Amino acid sequence: MTIQSFIPPHRILMGPGPSDISPQVLQALSRPTVGHLDPLFVGMMDELKSLLKYAFQTENEFTIAVSAPGSAGMETCFVNLIEPGEKVIVCRNGVFGERMRENVVRAGGIAEVVDDEWGTPVSVAKVEQALKDNPDAKVLAFVHAETSTGACSDAEALGKLAKQYGVLTIVDAVTSLGGVPLKVDEWQLDAVYSGSQKCLSCVPGLSPVTFSPAAIEKIQSRTTPVQSWFLDQSLVLGYWSGEGKRSYHHTAPVNSLYALHESLLILKNEGLENAWQRHRDMHEKLKQGLAKLGFEFVVEESSRLPQLNAIYIPQGIDDAKVRNHLLNTYNLEIGAGLGALAGKAWRIGLMGYGARAENVALCLRALEESLAQ
Amino acid sequence: MTIQSFIPPHRILMGPGPSDISPQVLQALSRPTVGHLDPLFVGMMDELKSLLKYAFQTENEFTIAVSAPGSAGMETCFVNLIEPGEKVIVCRNGVFGERMRENVVRAGGIAEVVDDEWGTPVSVAKVEQALKDNPDAKVLAFVHAETSTGACSDAEALGKLAKQYGVLTIVDAVTSLGGVPLKVDEWQLDAVYSGSQKCLSCVPGLSPVTFSPAAIEKIQSRTTPVQSWFLDQSLVLGYWSGEGKRSYHHTAPVNSLYALHESLLILKNEGLENAWQRHRDMHEKLKQGLAKLGFEFVVEESSRLPQLNAIYIPQGIDDAKVRNHLLNTYNLEIGAGLGALAGKAWRIGLMGYGARAENVALCLRALEESLAQ
Repeated sequence: MTIQSFIPPHRILMGPGPSDISPQVLQALSRPTVGHLDPLFVGMMDELKSLLKYAFQTENEFTIAVSAPGSAGMETCFVNLIEPGEKVIVCRNGVFGERMRENVVRAGGIAEVVDDEWGTPVSVAKVEQALKDNPDAKVLAFVHAETSTGACSDAEALGKLAKQYGVLTIVDAVTSLGGVPLKVDEWQLDAVYSGSQKCLSCVPGLSPVTFSPAAIEKIQSRTTPVQSWFLDQSLVLGYWSGEGKRSYHHTAPVNSLYALHESLLILKNEGLENAWQRHRDMHEKLKQGLAKLGFEFVVEESSRLPQLNAIYIPQGIDDAKVRNHLLNTYNLEIGAGLGALAGKAWRIGLMGYGARAENVALCLRALEESLAQ
Repeated sequence: MTIQSFIPPHRILMGPGPSDISPQVLQALSRPTVGHLDPLFVGMMDELKSLLKYAFQTENEFTIAVSAPGSAGMETCFVNLIEPGEKVIVCRNGVFGERMRENVVRAGGIAEVVDDEWGTPVSVAKVEQALKDNPDAKVLAFVHAETSTGACSDAEALGKLAKQYGVLTIVDAVTSLGGVPLKVDEWQLDAVYSGSQKCLSCVPGLSPVTFSPAAIEKIQSRTTPVQSWFLDQSLVLGYWSGEGKRSYHHTAPVNSLYALHESLLILKNEGLENAWQRHRDMHEKLKQGLAKLGFEFVVEESSRLPQLNAIYIPQGIDDAKVRNHLLNTYNLEIGAGLGALAGKAWRIGLMGYGARAENVALCLRALEESLAQ
C-alpha cells in the first residue's frame, strides 16, 4: 500500500466530542516545540494552571492537565484516592458511571452502586440513603454530565451531601466543564476530572483535573503506593509544582498544552457565564428546530444538558444511513447512541466553539433533508 | 496576571527529547480535527499501524500507539504482561531500568534486579546467570537505549537469550526506535515500547508499542484483570482492530496521531537504514568536534548511542551557566545530566530531524564559545 500525507476534510463536529476546534487553537498547537523543562514552557504551565483554576472555579493549588485523555483523568482520580479495601458509592446512570465502577474494582476498592435509569439524573435521595446504609464508605463518585445520555446531575446537592456524611467526592466533569455551571469550591467537590475535547474545544488527549486540599490529604496519608507509576500524582506534582526546580517525571505533551492554553484563554476572554449562556441559547435554537421536525429528547427538560442533545431516532429511519448522509454530503458529524441507546438515539453536540448559530442551522437543514429522503 | 497567547521562540532541540520537529510534521498536526470514529480517520489509523510495523521491523498485528507518553507505554507493557506474584528479571544501568523495577513492583510482580554501572551496557553474561538462578522468572526487562547515559545494550543477544530460557522480553526502545537498528521480529522481542518525541521527531505525547503473538497469548491467558482500565490492551485492541466495527474505548488524540503518521512517513521515505546511517554520520561529526574541544564521553565507543551523546562537564565549568548561555544566546537546548549524572554530564541529542549538519555545527561553535567565557 502506498501511503501519502493524510489530508483530512474539514468536518463540522456535532457529536459527543471531539468538538469543533477554533483555527486559533489549531494555530497554537502547531507552534514550534520547546523542551518540557524550558523556563518559558514552565512559565506557560503556570499560566495554564491559573486558567484551569478559573475554568473549574477553584483555588485548589493542585489543578493541572493529565497528559492523556479523559479516561486517564478518571483513572487518576480513582487510583490516587482509593486504597485497596475501601468502599466507594458509585452512581450509575449511563456508560460513564459503569466505567467508574470498573475503576473502583480495578483499584482494589469495593463499589456500592446506586442505579438510576439511563437518561435521568442521579437521585439525590437514593444517594443519601446509600450514605446512611454505608457509614464505612470513603468516597462518593458520580458523573456530572453523562455524555452517553445528555443528563445533568445536581453536582451541587451531591457535593454538599457528601460533605455532610464526611466522604470525599470524585466527579466526572468531562462534558460539563465550560458548558454548564461547575463550581468546584462552592460545591465542595474534591477530585474533579474533565477532557480537553468537549466544551473547551481543544484537541483530544488531555484531561484537566483538580484536587481539593482534603483530596491531597487523603493521597498523602495513603499506606499503600498508588498502583500506577504514570498516574501517581505525588510524583506528577513535582513536575507541575510552582516553586523551585521542576523535577522530571515524564515528557509533557508540549504542543497539546499550547492548544489547551489557547482554548482556555478563549474561554476566559469570553467569560464563563457568557459561555454557559451561549450554550443555553444555541440549545434553545436547536430544540425549537428539532421540535418542528418531530424529534423527542431522551432527557426531560429539567435535567437536560444544552451541550449534549440526545434525541430518539424516529421509527422507520435508518440510523447509519442518515449519519452517513450527513457526513458524506455535509461533512457534518453527529453522534450515534452509546450502550443502551445504541441504534435508538442520536447525540447532537453543541460544545465550545461548536455551539454556534451556523452549526445549528446546518444541522437542522441537513436533518430535515435526510428524513425526507 | 494578564495572560496572552503563548508564542514560543524557535528553539533548536539537542537535548534528550523532545527533539527537533520538521515543519512538515507541525503542519500535519494542525490539520482540521475529525471524529475518532470517522471512517477516514480509521483508514489513517490502519496506515499508521503499517508504518509503525515498518519502523519496528515487525509483522506483529498488535502494533499501535498508546494515547500517552512513553512512561505510559512502559506501564502498558508491565501491567498487561505481568500478573501479581510473577517474577521479572529487570536490568538496571540507568534511570529507566530503575523505573522498570518500580513498574514491576506496582504491578504486583517480584523484581530480580541485574545491576550494571551507569554508562555501560547491560551485561549479557550477568543476565544469563540470573536466568539460570531464577528458573521461575517469566519476563526479562531491559532498556535498549538508556536515555540517561547514552549506552546501547545488545537487544539482539538479550532477546535470543530470553527465548532460550523460555521467558518473554519487555524492551524499552524509547530512544532507539528510528535512530539505531532495532529488529523486533528478527531479535524475537515480545513487548516493545517507544516514544514519539525522540528519533521519530514527532510531538511528545504518544507511545508506539508492539506485542508479539507470544505476548498477546500471555495477556489472553491472564487469570486476573489488568489493574489499569485505561491501559488494558484487551480493551484497546477493539478500537485499533482492523476488522469490522471499531468499538469505542477512549477518544484518540486525533491531531497527535496525524503528526505521528507524517513523521513515520518521513522515516519510511528516507528508509530506515539511511536514517540509521545519518545518525551515525552526524554523531561522527559531533564526536570529532567534541574531541578537539577536549570533551570525554561517558560511554565507551563500542556501546555508544549516536543519537544521545553524554559527555562529562569539564572541571571548573558551571553546568547551568553554560546551558543558560546556549539557550538564551542561541536558542539551543542541550540536556542536563539525570540521576547519578546530574551536574556531572551533559546530554547532546542528535535525534531524527535534529540529526543535521547545521545543528552539529551550531552546537560545536556555541559550546566552544561558552567554554571560553
